[in-house]
Amino acid sequence: MEGLNPQILGTMRWTFDTTKSKGSTLVDDTGREFLDTFMQISSIPLGYNNEELKATIASDEVLSMIVSRPAMGVFPPAELPNLLRPALSIAPLGMQYIQTLMCGSCTVENAMKSAFGFYAYNKRGGKPPGMDAHTSCMDGMAPGSPNIAALSFRGCFHGRTFGSLSMTNSKSAIKVDMPAFEWPHAPFPQMKYPLHEHERENAEEEAKCLEITQDLFDQAEKKGQPIAAVIIEPIQGEGGDARASDDFYRKLIDVARDNGAVMVVDEVQTGFGATGKWWASDYWEKSSDIVCYAKKSQACGFFYTDDFKANPETRIFNTWMGEPLKLVMMNKIIEIVQRDRLLDNVNRVGQVLQDGFVHMEDITGGMVNSGRGRGLYTAFSVATPELRDKMIKSAFDKNLIVGACGTSSIRFRPSLNFSSDEAEQAIGILSDCASELYHDKQIIKNNITTGSSAGLSAQR
Amino acid sequence: MEGLNPQILGTMRWTFDTTKSKGSTLVDDTGREFLDTFMQISSIPLGYNNEELKATIASDEVLSMIVSRPAMGVFPPAELPNLLRPALSIAPLGMQYIQTLMCGSCTVENAMKSAFGFYAYNKRGGKPPGMDAHTSCMDGMAPGSPNIAALSFRGCFHGRTFGSLSMTNSKSAIKVDMPAFEWPHAPFPQMKYPLHEHERENAEEEAKCLEITQDLFDQAEKKGQPIAAVIIEPIQGEGGDARASDDFYRKLIDVARDNGAVMVVDEVQTGFGATGKWWASDYWEKSSDIVCYAKKSQACGFFYTDDFKANPETRIFNTWMGEPLKLVMMNKIIEIVQRDRLLDNVNRVGQVLQDGFVHMEDITGGMVNSGRGRGLYTAFSVATPELRDKMIKSAFDKNLIVGACGTSSIRFRPSLNFSSDEAEQAIGILSDCASELYHDKQIIKNNITTGSSAGLSAQR
Repeated sequence: MEGLNPQILGTMRWTFDTTKSKGSTLVDDTGREFLDTFMQISSIPLGYNNEELKATIASDEVLSMIVSRPAMGVFPPAELPNLLRPALSIAPLGMQYIQTLMCGSCTVENAMKSAFGFYAYNKRGGKPPGMDAHTSCMDGMAPGSPNIAALSFRGCFHGRTFGSLSMTNSKSAIKVDMPAFEWPHAPFPQMKYPLHEHERENAEEEAKCLEITQDLFDQAEKKGQPIAAVIIEPIQGEGGDARASDDFYRKLIDVARDNGAVMVVDEVQTGFGATGKWWASDYWEKSSDIVCYAKKSQACGFFYTDDFKANPETRIFNTWMGEPLKLVMMNKIIEIVQRDRLLDNVNRVGQVLQDGFVHMEDITGGMVNSGRGRGLYTAFSVATPELRDKMIKSAFDKNLIVGACGTSSIRFRPSLNFSSDEAEQAIGILSDCASELYHDKQIIKNNITTGSSAGLSAQR
Repeated sequence: MEGLNPQILGTMRWTFDTTKSKGSTLVDDTGREFLDTFMQISSIPLGYNNEELKATIASDEVLSMIVSRPAMGVFPPAELPNLLRPALSIAPLGMQYIQTLMCGSCTVENAMKSAFGFYAYNKRGGKPPGMDAHTSCMDGMAPGSPNIAALSFRGCFHGRTFGSLSMTNSKSAIKVDMPAFEWPHAPFPQMKYPLHEHERENAEEEAKCLEITQDLFDQAEKKGQPIAAVIIEPIQGEGGDARASDDFYRKLIDVARDNGAVMVVDEVQTGFGATGKWWASDYWEKSSDIVCYAKKSQACGFFYTDDFKANPETRIFNTWMGEPLKLVMMNKIIEIVQRDRLLDNVNRVGQVLQDGFVHMEDITGGMVNSGRGRGLYTAFSVATPELRDKMIKSAFDKNLIVGACGTSSIRFRPSLNFSSDEAEQAIGILSDCASELYHDKQIIKNNITTGSSAGLSAQR
């Protein structure tokens, strides 16, 4: 492909047909059909070519919004209040305001700016920055550019722009060679599965992680680089679909607040219905300060509480600040999800997947293990990274698309209207793949007596 | 407006009607019509509600691309090579490749990542990063997170996310309270206008700035924070429409190359026809390494040279990496610009504006001064910031929208099909505003003998 970097092309498995793909069926450029449970990295909410969505955006009014695209920060379209109302009606617990932006990374960058600005204002007792701050920030020096930090967790993913990348901690390959803020990372609880069989150990693990988090606050204060904000995903997606108990997150919010830090929740991947509630953090039944959304909502941005009104308006600004088209889409999606009770569907079909994971664990002697998740946001682990990669390849050969995450997990990110039949079809194909791999493995094991079975134990 | 931060609302002057606005006429929500020369912060290429653009995106194929939105880095649409061809056909001098992204800030962040990655690979003689780099980057420490810098210029604007904001240097209000990389800023040549009357002084000023730039390279090396990339706008937009001679930029490219740094050009605002060539940097007749585009092109991203193919593909990646819809729009815009010879129009109508600036200078005894620009990318200065603000308000009252920039300048960023009649209409209104202000000022001056006329001299 002329003009496309061949190295980048190397990462592209194939191209797909946006016109012929339909529902959960991705059609590639040769006409081959795949059952897609990964849906463009978890970003398609209602399947390919949803006709209702298409009809909505085909209206003359919406087409005008596209070609007469407003710079929403200064020249908003007259429809903006109406466009924001549906999103606000499903706001996460405790959130009253919304800030629209263009993509997940930008959203996280601006959410952190909002947090840092809030922290700085509070530290000054609500006063605006002084002249010395205005002068020194032009050289990137304190006090204007304060040496304050965001605390994130080992295994997290928050984006790849400089601020968000400094927090991201899931893979070194995406961080290496880039200048970064030297910000602290707390350990994320490494839970044992199934959760209900390891409650005591898991609770101890969580307590330990919270203790270390508090230690990091103390160390940061001593070091002269106080932690102004804490950011966490309700379930670490890229990091391997790892989740702690709801109690852990509640306690973490307390730790952040006790230390004067802003609590930011990154729901770019977990949000907008994927876990069976609109927001995965709603399971916690405790409000944080900022919640980021993107992907399935098509529109991106963050919700925030009443407190943040105090933030100076100049901080969060760029040319477009989101796009009316994407708000129209988000609103239509909200309408369809509510009308068709798709959150119920997410919970029901998610259970079909989780039952399937247990079945696969049974038929592979634990080679497949640690089935986990909430709603359709599910994953299981495979004994080794190599077996995981083989299983993805084998599924692909059988026309099933699944996603990888962590070191040896397979994740599911289907649309919210993924059906039980499709879930059973996916589990059927994966069970075949797992059986074949397990069978091959057994043959190898029987032939090579040095084979180890250690890799078969649950990984997290 | 419920759910909209009241402080943010405070910055919104009014809302506009995306359906009724047409061409260069913005219609607000009360039906009032404005001649718009600022066009959503320089981002509308062919006027409001361009019917050809609307017809193009109304096709079933494009609507499918919108609702079946691809994650372009891994699952590109089959049409991608065709979608990229027109953009590549107008690539800046020396550029063979393109990387699509979602907005201006993201584009600059990723362009810098590309530059840093390239620099790090070169420093290691083309070898991949070692295990120590992979380990240390997970804590944001060297060698994995190297202490390398980007050099930008005083007065520049490159965006407001953490990486781009560290480089941005036009206004302290947008930098203050945010953690920042402590990266160096070179002085930008302060030219005297009209340029042809001050050639010798201006050349001396440019030589001095280049000398300081080289000094900053030397200091950075000594300090252990080498400069890996240089970034510059061909005309500083937010910073006051300041431009150096083409010779300055050519020499700057040499300085960057001689010091082993990557040369990045930020054409987010100057690019895509605004200056009468597709790229303002094409006037230099010398290739840089990376050129960023956004705004008028609707699609965003950066062009780069053959050298950058060597960059590892994992660096530049996110979920969407641009959007097919925006590429379809960009391509149609290119087609219309070429068919209707709009670059010629930009140069012709830009001259009408510049002649108007001279006229206003004449009738205001220099209260309006320093008319400048290339193509339609034009601006003039007003004697004081207060008079500038009054002039913008007065123009608004007479149904004309212009933009502010720098401390006391007024900028024009009309669409590429802005007509001579519209330009004359704009100059007519502004001349009235200027005359009135000049008249008021004279009255004040005659009544208050302490009034100073120092503010009337050319500002840059």
